[in-house]
Amino acid sequence: MRAVEFIAKKRDGGEHTEEELRDFIGKVTEGSLPDYQVSAWLMAVFLRGMTMQETCALTRAMRDSGERIDLSDLPNGPTLDKHSTGGVGDKTSLVVAPLLAAAGIPILKMSGRGLGFSGGTIDKLEAIPGLRTALGREEAKQQVRSIGLAILSQSSQLAPADGKLYALRDVTATVESIPLIASSIMSKKLAGGAKRILLDVKVGSGSFMRELEQARALASTLVTIGVQEGVPTQAVLTDMEEPLGWTVGNALEVEEAIRVLQNADAAEPRFLALCLGLVEHGLLACERAKNPQEAQNIAEQLLRSGTGAAKLEAMIRAQGGPKALEAVLTALPRAPITYRVEAPEDGFIAAIDARVVGLLAVALGAGRSTKEDRIDPAVGIVLHKKRGAWVHAGEPLATLHLQDTQASQRDHFKTMLLSAYRFAAEPVVLPPSPLLEVLSSI
Amino acid sequence: MRAVEFIAKKRDGGEHTEEELRDFIGKVTEGSLPDYQVSAWLMAVFLRGMTMQETCALTRAMRDSGERIDLSDLPNGPTLDKHSTGGVGDKTSLVVAPLLAAAGIPILKMSGRGLGFSGGTIDKLEAIPGLRTALGREEAKQQVRSIGLAILSQSSQLAPADGKLYALRDVTATVESIPLIASSIMSKKLAGGAKRILLDVKVGSGSFMRELEQARALASTLVTIGVQEGVPTQAVLTDMEEPLGWTVGNALEVEEAIRVLQNADAAEPRFLALCLGLVEHGLLACERAKNPQEAQNIAEQLLRSGTGAAKLEAMIRAQGGPKALEAVLTALPRAPITYRVEAPEDGFIAAIDARVVGLLAVALGAGRSTKEDRIDPAVGIVLHKKRGAWVHAGEPLATLHLQDTQASQRDHFKTMLLSAYRFAAEPVVLPPSPLLEVLSSI
Repeated sequence: MRAVEFIAKKRDGGEHTEEELRDFIGKVTEGSLPDYQVSAWLMAVFLRGMTMQETCALTRAMRDSGERIDLSDLPNGPTLDKHSTGGVGDKTSLVVAPLLAAAGIPILKMSGRGLGFSGGTIDKLEAIPGLRTALGREEAKQQVRSIGLAILSQSSQLAPADGKLYALRDVTATVESIPLIASSIMSKKLAGGAKRILLDVKVGSGSFMRELEQARALASTLVTIGVQEGVPTQAVLTDMEEPLGWTVGNALEVEEAIRVLQNADAAEPRFLALCLGLVEHGLLACERAKNPQEAQNIAEQLLRSGTGAAKLEAMIRAQGGPKALEAVLTALPRAPITYRVEAPEDGFIAAIDARVVGLLAVALGAGRSTKEDRIDPAVGIVLHKKRGAWVHAGEPLATLHLQDTQASQRDHFKTMLLSAYRFAAEPVVLPPSPLLEVLSSI
Repeated sequence: MRAVEFIAKKRDGGEHTEEELRDFIGKVTEGSLPDYQVSAWLMAVFLRGMTMQETCALTRAMRDSGERIDLSDLPNGPTLDKHSTGGVGDKTSLVVAPLLAAAGIPILKMSGRGLGFSGGTIDKLEAIPGLRTALGREEAKQQVRSIGLAILSQSSQLAPADGKLYALRDVTATVESIPLIASSIMSKKLAGGAKRILLDVKVGSGSFMRELEQARALASTLVTIGVQEGVPTQAVLTDMEEPLGWTVGNALEVEEAIRVLQNADAAEPRFLALCLGLVEHGLLACERAKNPQEAQNIAEQLLRSGTGAAKLEAMIRAQGGPKALEAVLTALPRAPITYRVEAPEDGFIAAIDARVVGLLAVALGAGRSTKEDRIDPAVGIVLHKKRGAWVHAGEPLATLHLQDTQASQRDHFKTMLLSAYRFAAEPVVLPPSPLLEVLSSI
C-alpha cells in the first residue's frame, strides 16, 4: 500500500490490517518514510482512533521493530515489570520494586527519563553518585539472578520504532492518544520480556490523563493488549492530583524513598498507601499471595522488617553506588540554598496542582523541557503540608531547594509554587485511597 | 504561539485567529517550520475543518505571502479571471476566454499544469509549437492592452505559501479539504489582481468533488471569500461525470477548441452548452449583458460570427505560435498510431467514467502522475460517442492516439478504456444542461 493511501485510509476512519501496520512500522524503523507522512498519519490516528485489533497489531509491529529480551531463563519466575504512566514526585518504583524483590519476585525493570512536568526513575537513580543505569542485558540478568532486582535505563534497541514515533508525536501535538500511548508502553514492556505487568496509570493534573474516564480507557486498552499477547497484566488507576509524597526533585526523592523503606511511620500516608497497594497487586499477580488480605499482610511485613530497604541497598551497591543506604543519604547532592514558602492565608489546602509543581521543577532544573536538557539532581521542592491539611497564614507550606545562581529568582519560584495552591474554608473531600480503580486480567 | 500549541488548537477543534494564521503562513513561506509540523496541522484541518472566518483569514495570509499583481491600470475593466477546479478533457478555457475577450472584457488568465487525472490549460497551450506561456507580468499586461487576452503560466512568486502547502497536501492525503482547496484557489486569484472571478466548479467522477453536496459547499466557500475580499465572484457547478467534449490529450484538445470556435455545428453539444453557459455568466458578471437572455444572444453571436476564433488566433500569434489557426492545426503534433476501440455489446452508453479516462491519459503520457513527469502533447483519446448514445456491438466507441513505442500495449490501454464504460438496455437519464447550479455574489 502506498503511503498516501495508507494515510487516507486512517483519515477516512478505515481500519488498518496487521500487514499494513507491519509494513508501515518497518518503514518507520528503517527511516524510509518522510516525517511529514508519518506525522499526518499520527494526527489521523489521534482524531480517528484505532480499533482494539489495530492497537494490538500496532503494538506487535513496534515490539518486533528491535531486539526482544528473553527472561525465561531467570529463576523464581515469572518476572514482573512495573510501569508508571508518569507523574510528579513519582518515586514509587524505588519503594515498590525493592519490596516486591524482597518477596522473591524477580524484577528486571527498564525505565525512562523525565520529560516535561513528568519525572523519570532513571533520573532519580542517577542522583546517586557512582550508580550506573546503563546495564548490559546479560549484566542486568546476572544481577537479577544474584540479588533479584535491577533497574536499568531502557535500551534504544528496544522497540526503536516507538522512539521514532514518540519524537514526532512530541512536536506534532499527537501525544495524548490512547492507541498511541498504549502501543508505546506495551511494545516496550513486551519486547522487554516481562511475564507479568503491573501498570500504575496516573489520573489527574500531574499526569497525561487528567480525567478518570480517559485513564480508564487507557488502562482497559493496556490490559487488553497484555491479555491478547498472553502476558497477565494489571492496571491500577491512581490519584495524581497533588505531587506524590513529600518531595519533588531527584536527590530529594531518592532520600524520601529510602526513608519510607527505613521508617514507614514518617512516610507521607497517601504515598505509603499507594506503594503498599501496588505491592499487594504485584504479589497477587505473581501468585505470592492467595488473597488481598494475605497480600496486605505480606506487604506490611516486608516494609516493617526492613527487607525492602536491604533489597534497595543491595541494588544500589550492585550498580556501583555507595555500599550502604546511610552512605547514599550522605552522598546525595544537596542544593546550597533553602527558601521557605509560607501559607498566604488561613484555610484547608484544597489543591496542590501537581502539573504546576512539575513545571516548577522543570524551571528549577530538576526536569527537562526538551530531551536534550541536562538536569540538576540537587534542586527541588519539599512539601510540608498536603491536600486536606488546615494551615495558618504564615505557617511553612514548602521549602524550595535552589542553587546559588537561583537566589535572585526565588520570589518568582515562590509565586509559581503558590499558584499551584487553592485554599478553602471547609474541609476537603479526598478519595479514601490513592488507588482509585483496578483493571486486571489476572 | 508555539507550533505545537497551534497544531493542538486545531486538533481540538479550536478556531485560529487571523494573527495566528498569518504567523503560521509566514513561517511556512520562509521555510522555518518543519514539514512534519505543517502536515500534522493539515491533517487536523482536514478532519476538524475551519470556520468561514478562518478560511478567509488563511486565504488573505496566503495571498499576501508573495507578490500581488495590480491590474487596475488595464483599460475596459473590470478584468475577469476564469478558473476551473480541474477536469478531464477540460479545454473550456480555450473556448470561453477568447469569446469573453471578443466581448471586450479584458482577460488576463493565469493557469496551471495538470496533475493526476486532471489536465491543465498550460499543458494544452504548450502543445502549440512556438507558443510561450511564461510571460512576464508587464508583457502579459501589454498583450491585454493590445489584444485584450493573455493566458500565462502562474508565477511561482504568486502565493508561494500555497505552493509549499500543496506539495505537502499531495503526499499526506490532505488534498480534498474544502477550506484548504478554497484558500488555495482564491489566494492565487486575489493575488493575481482580477476584479471579477468566474469559477467553474466541477462535480463528478472526473473532478476532486465527486458529490454535488461537497461541490456546493466548496462553491459556497469560494464565493463567500470573494465577497469578503470585495471581488464579485460567480461559481457555476458543472457536470464532470464523463470527459468533456470529444477529446482527451493536449494537442487533440487544442484542435477541438479551435474547431468549436470555427464551426459550432460540429461541436459536441454538451461541451458547447457548457462553454456558452460560462460565457453568459461572464458577460453578466462584467455587466456586458443586462439579463440572461441578452447574455445568451451575445454569446451565440460571438461564437457564430467567428470573433472568438479571431481572438484566439491573435493570442496564439502574440505568444509566439503560428500566425493563423489553420497553421496551428497543421503544426500540432500528431501521434503516429491510431487504434480504434469498438463497443463490446449493444446498448445505451450509461457512463464513461471521466476519472478512468483521465488516468488512462496519464498512462498514455498525456498527463502526469508526479509534478516532475514530462508529458507527450501528441497522445490521447478521441471519443466518437458520448453518454446517452445507443451503440451496436462492434461500432467505434473511441480511438487511441499512440506513439510507436506504445503499440505493444494497445490491448492493455483498450481494456483500461473499456473499463470506463457502462452500458444499459434502457435510455439514460442525463441532467438537461451541463450547468447544474450557480452560486453568485453578483
